[in-house]
Amino acid sequence: MSDPFSAPAIQQPVSLDAILAVLHGGDAAAIAAICRQAHPGDIEAAIEQLDEADREAFLAALPVELITELADYLPSAALENRFRSLPEAEKREVLESLSDDELVDLLQEVPEEEREEIIDLLPEEMQEVSQDLLQFPEYSAGGRMTTAIAEIKASMTIREALALLAEQQEDTEILSRIYVVDDAGRLLGKTRLRDLAFNPRSKLVRDIMDGDQISIEAMADQEQAAQMIARYDLVALPVVDAERRLLGVITHDDALDILQEEHTEDLELASGISGERGDLAYLQTPVVDHLRRRFLWVLGMALLGLISGTVLHDQGDVFKAHYVLALYLPMVVAAGGNTGSQAATMVIRAMSLGELGPKVFFRVVWKEMLIGLLIGSLLGLCIALQIRFLLPQGLAGETGASLMHVALVVGLSLTAQVTASTLTGAALPLGARAIRLDPAVVASPAITTLVDVTGMLIYFGLARLLLPGA
Amino acid sequence: MSDPFSAPAIQQPVSLDAILAVLHGGDAAAIAAICRQAHPGDIEAAIEQLDEADREAFLAALPVELITELADYLPSAALENRFRSLPEAEKREVLESLSDDELVDLLQEVPEEEREEIIDLLPEEMQEVSQDLLQFPEYSAGGRMTTAIAEIKASMTIREALALLAEQQEDTEILSRIYVVDDAGRLLGKTRLRDLAFNPRSKLVRDIMDGDQISIEAMADQEQAAQMIARYDLVALPVVDAERRLLGVITHDDALDILQEEHTEDLELASGISGERGDLAYLQTPVVDHLRRRFLWVLGMALLGLISGTVLHDQGDVFKAHYVLALYLPMVVAAGGNTGSQAATMVIRAMSLGELGPKVFFRVVWKEMLIGLLIGSLLGLCIALQIRFLLPQGLAGETGASLMHVALVVGLSLTAQVTASTLTGAALPLGARAIRLDPAVVASPAITTLVDVTGMLIYFGLARLLLPGA
Repeated sequence: MSDPFSAPAIQQPVSLDAILAVLHGGDAAAIAAICRQAHPGDIEAAIEQLDEADREAFLAALPVELITELADYLPSAALENRFRSLPEAEKREVLESLSDDELVDLLQEVPEEEREEIIDLLPEEMQEVSQDLLQFPEYSAGGRMTTAIAEIKASMTIREALALLAEQQEDTEILSRIYVVDDAGRLLGKTRLRDLAFNPRSKLVRDIMDGDQISIEAMADQEQAAQMIARYDLVALPVVDAERRLLGVITHDDALDILQEEHTEDLELASGISGERGDLAYLQTPVVDHLRRRFLWVLGMALLGLISGTVLHDQGDVFKAHYVLALYLPMVVAAGGNTGSQAATMVIRAMSLGELGPKVFFRVVWKEMLIGLLIGSLLGLCIALQIRFLLPQGLAGETGASLMHVALVVGLSLTAQVTASTLTGAALPLGARAIRLDPAVVASPAITTLVDVTGMLIYFGLARLLLPGA
Repeated sequence: MSDPFSAPAIQQPVSLDAILAVLHGGDAAAIAAICRQAHPGDIEAAIEQLDEADREAFLAALPVELITELADYLPSAALENRFRSLPEAEKREVLESLSDDELVDLLQEVPEEEREEIIDLLPEEMQEVSQDLLQFPEYSAGGRMTTAIAEIKASMTIREALALLAEQQEDTEILSRIYVVDDAGRLLGKTRLRDLAFNPRSKLVRDIMDGDQISIEAMADQEQAAQMIARYDLVALPVVDAERRLLGVITHDDALDILQEEHTEDLELASGISGERGDLAYLQTPVVDHLRRRFLWVLGMALLGLISGTVLHDQGDVFKAHYVLALYLPMVVAAGGNTGSQAATMVIRAMSLGELGPKVFFRVVWKEMLIGLLIGSLLGLCIALQIRFLLPQGLAGETGASLMHVALVVGLSLTAQVTASTLTGAALPLGARAIRLDPAVVASPAITTLVDVTGMLIYFGLARLLLPGA
């Protein structure tokens, strides 16, 4: 990972700083000019750096024809506000400029009662498409697809197919992927414009098509679609219904967006941030939204932390006889959290890369037990040596036991705690998946809080067992 | 995120389970048959589930012509072993089947002295290409690009351009992206086969090309390339040298792979796993490699944990007068780790999505301070109320102070600890970036270990200040 802003040499027509300077300047004519000049992707990146007020000011300064041009690149929550303020004719203009997946995003964003109003403003054929698309959940393949594809029948001659495609050519983009279906609309394969062009016109499409039928069901999760696009190196993945009828496609750029979103979700879950990020950038997200997404986990973990507290409170009298033990308590506890999180991360990541099938539970657990035991005993040995040979003699005086005894307790505790935590970190996500939960919910804070308790129990237990007078 | 293996309805010609059954069966003829039938992407996914011995057995069973076919999908560490065992003629065959980026991966994988031997086996034009590509670092745009592109000059007529392209047409894939350069080879724009085909043959390429010059410098980080592909919705991103001469492209499927790798790296760094993952799947990575990547952080954090231990050891006599405080120590400490990690995750993610430019330090820190203060005081209030009204009266007897006093100490400690930790979690990654470090290295375990210390100091400090006789 590196910082895209300090990078040396992206060649782009207009620099981000230049765009930001104009956006912050607030001059409407200059804003319109730079929006015409720069790539919409750069405008999108610049908007993300604005806070809410600046963003609203920017959108207000934008003439309608630029809104229609940039619409696909504006966060739909932002678009929604500006859209409301437009007169009806201009609303229609903006709506017609939206790609169908962006349109559906907008419809999902607005309240139920407004949705019908907006749909009424659409041209008839788009009304139907948007109703169709709205039936799929937001994070399903169907909710993410575009219906702008070229579709021809296998039973057509190439001449008929080319005539049909000529009608649709106003949107040249879709001609780079042409799908072949049977008479019931079921996906049979695909072909390219150049294959049609370079074959005799009387041949049947069926005879020249590529019979590749890789596709995904519309109700499947969007992440699965992205992973198929990655696995098969696809430019576009056909989306079909339960009868294998072709509905649309998810494109390679959607796959990138989906992976970025899922990546964000994984990272957030792994540090106990709940709920959806929404499509607003960090700086634009109100403080109260950040609060809402973070507080619940923090409170929950704090209450669970009372369990560790109770153990410390109940067992802490061991310290009275062997006060030197306090020196190693935080280390023993934290080593569990650290190694448990490592194991969980390894296993969760391998699962989401599709490397762990459903039958690997014991292979993974065995492997992690071995790793935990090795890390734990190595660590235990290092620290035991530190205690035995490096600890000031003054501290030895505090305890009725020899430093050798203390080294034994701390070393064994570290070994046991790390092994148990590594096992826990590996087994919990696998278990979560087995009962159809997202493995990432068993995230680091949960594991850490859990193994905090086991760590104290192990440490105090071993101390009582091995130290005289504890 | 969902589990790709329990998913209902991927339509794919051969199921992963079917492939795995054959691979585990070990019958060479059956293995060859299924490799011909299934998509190479599915074979790749199946191989990831095998352990090392099974994988080697599978590769040994594979006839050479299938190795050449699957070469681009085999992990290069695995390919390397099988490759060594081949006679020279077959080595040549395999090498010629590799795409240039996969070839470079293989060359980077083998030891220096073998590299020259392999290069000598290549056809002359590939020797040159591979020498050129090897000069770029593995994780740079240049190290990741393919040179298989169609390149025409702006000064050519369309007739000349089409004649040139006709010579290269054995590789039809590259015809979907045709780049236009000036006489010195500098990138000027791009065009499509259909634009050439549908224009008069005597026109100049210059007059029909699309003058889009978005490109990336070869030495730039690969992640930057992936982010540009995402931002501009590109199928391929041209890679140029310092003089803007066209060298190759990075394609959309590379972008997906790069994002997946960087995602893995981010997640691993965030839980203190160091070093590279390599291209072996989880189950194939030897235990000793896992150990190597995990142990160092664990040991480092354990040693830092001695600081917390020292604080607990030195300050813990507060407990003697107010033993009830032990009940809340783990909570106060852990709340800092949890909120610090949340803040770090939020900020690191926003940076890597390019949402935080270089001038936002104070805006981010201010925002996180506010969030920290809100979460901290809310949490402090909740716990203070719990202490005042829910704590058993028996515990109150332990302390010379009233429960009201204890509630005050714990509540204020939580507020201060959460605010300080949130600030730390946000500021450290921003600071790391400012001194050109990867922000993700200031990962959760480091922040947690750090704020463990501040948490104890705050807690014991406030107790001494506010509790009578402490």
